[in-house]
Amino acid sequence: MGDRIARSIVLAARPDGRIKESDFRFETSSVPEPVENEMLLEMQYLSLDPYMRARMDAVKSYAAYLEIGDVMVGHSIARVVVSRHPQFREGDIVLASTGWRTLCLSKGENVRKLDPDLVPPTSWLGILGTAGFAAYVGLRVIGRPASRETVVVAAASGGVGALVGQLARRAGARAVGIAGGPEKCSYIKEAFFDEAIDHRAPDLEKRLAGACPNGVDVYFENVGGDIFAAVWPLLNQFARIPVCGLVGQFGRPTPPGPDRLPGTMRQVLSKSLTIRGFLITNFPELRADFEKEIVSGLRDGSIRQREDITDGFHETVRAFMQMLDGSSFGKSVVRVAT
Amino acid sequence: MGDRIARSIVLAARPDGRIKESDFRFETSSVPEPVENEMLLEMQYLSLDPYMRARMDAVKSYAAYLEIGDVMVGHSIARVVVSRHPQFREGDIVLASTGWRTLCLSKGENVRKLDPDLVPPTSWLGILGTAGFAAYVGLRVIGRPASRETVVVAAASGGVGALVGQLARRAGARAVGIAGGPEKCSYIKEAFFDEAIDHRAPDLEKRLAGACPNGVDVYFENVGGDIFAAVWPLLNQFARIPVCGLVGQFGRPTPPGPDRLPGTMRQVLSKSLTIRGFLITNFPELRADFEKEIVSGLRDGSIRQREDITDGFHETVRAFMQMLDGSSFGKSVVRVAT
Repeated sequence: MGDRIARSIVLAARPDGRIKESDFRFETSSVPEPVENEMLLEMQYLSLDPYMRARMDAVKSYAAYLEIGDVMVGHSIARVVVSRHPQFREGDIVLASTGWRTLCLSKGENVRKLDPDLVPPTSWLGILGTAGFAAYVGLRVIGRPASRETVVVAAASGGVGALVGQLARRAGARAVGIAGGPEKCSYIKEAFFDEAIDHRAPDLEKRLAGACPNGVDVYFENVGGDIFAAVWPLLNQFARIPVCGLVGQFGRPTPPGPDRLPGTMRQVLSKSLTIRGFLITNFPELRADFEKEIVSGLRDGSIRQREDITDGFHETVRAFMQMLDGSSFGKSVVRVAT
Repeated sequence: MGDRIARSIVLAARPDGRIKESDFRFETSSVPEPVENEMLLEMQYLSLDPYMRARMDAVKSYAAYLEIGDVMVGHSIARVVVSRHPQFREGDIVLASTGWRTLCLSKGENVRKLDPDLVPPTSWLGILGTAGFAAYVGLRVIGRPASRETVVVAAASGGVGALVGQLARRAGARAVGIAGGPEKCSYIKEAFFDEAIDHRAPDLEKRLAGACPNGVDVYFENVGGDIFAAVWPLLNQFARIPVCGLVGQFGRPTPPGPDRLPGTMRQVLSKSLTIRGFLITNFPELRADFEKEIVSGLRDGSIRQREDITDGFHETVRAFMQMLDGSSFGKSVVRVAT
């Protein structure tokens, strides 16, 4: 039997601001048969997440950035096609960190076997994956909303935001989601939030203030930029700002001014604010409780996830661009094969 | 017996940037004899603290600002001259929130009787007062230095900074103090810190980096402005920034730019930083442990305080200006009478 052909997507060029198709390149390579302790994985679903955009810039961060020619990183749901690994069998459905490709060999490191009957496997890419865990850690460790407090999050129809809203309401807080466009807003208000604000409509600050009559106690910072500025004047004494993502800032030059930092620090002092960045990798001890709560919620229907599924590996770059520009709706996933 | 004459200092004008003598006005008033449940206090020492500057601006903050004509606020050590109050006797030495005046009547509210044999009474204005408690709360609740971590604080010869250094060393951390001029630096290095950096000498950033070979884990933000900018690149992953004061920013216009806020937020995320403002009034439960530890340290000599004592009530405004411009050296106190 001849080698199989894997397709992959590599970083072709550093983005200059917004990403474009030519920043990526499709490649093919042949994948040899697995040797002892190896298995061959065939991707079913690729996860697309905002953090991937950060890795494309040559900027030192919490994770190494990609070199030109590297395969784009990411998690996938895959099927074991051939196994010579003692812990995995042909037909197993797994969660693996494979990057953007259709086939790959694996030695089983960081591969997790899933029970497809427990919850839909793609849940592990979104609400049970990095996005959901980020919502959980940020809200439970830093945000800690009390009953009747107000929690605001942007990108509220996305993987992180939708769970922030649901967890905030579980805590008895008022959840206000910011999303782009009337369709998303009416959906998230029905599904996840007490109020939804369309950031594309005029008078964002005024409408946000109207949706938060008692001010804002937790602003889950998931996007950066303009939304932060709109929320800022509404923050209450002792407000907490978990900083989870700043995708809205990527590709933007440093604003010329005025310098908002001194005024920001004055508010931090006068309102006893907490601004705290976090990475989920530093909270492994919370993982088990997180999974237990979300799996249970998904099974009894009290927690929901919306997915935005794009069909076909060749559509991956387009789907990624849509996620970044806000035109996707729900957790972004590419269906490669099923 | 005729009424006594009290002198007081009131806010005469809102400062336009840096304060000047004409922002204040001396007034005299007669103080009647105490009635039942009242006592007459004669000030021995007035405390001068940076927060007083904030109250002079008509800016909404954690505390109400002063109106034009109001007596300047502050704590004092006073002697009970006449008492018709059941809990205080003539000759008692007390800590009271009297404002900048020489005599006043009191009903005993927020007046605390001191034991002058325990520690010098002026300790209660500085290291056992708001300044010391701010150092304690900021370091123990937010900074939480671990052994061998590095703690940096500016205004390191002042009321807050000197105790931050001493508490950091108690925790086994490396304490780096920033102060103005070689005299202060050599003193604080001998008394409170492992290293002292003179912010008036050139190459602040370079010398600070040299004094912090393992980066900075806690930056106790006590001044704002330029020092923050110098410390910023040195912050380690998971660094904590208790925000206690921003006196260095007062009277400065908003800088034109560039806008440092987006870059700051990126660092908060990529380094998992915590920036948290606090007010000591929100931590009453820590007060008893704080006093126990500091009183014990003052008595056995393991904790020290340096005071900058100015003689004469008429010198109060000058002493206040010196404290704000950094030319005082130690906790600022005005000796009114003894």
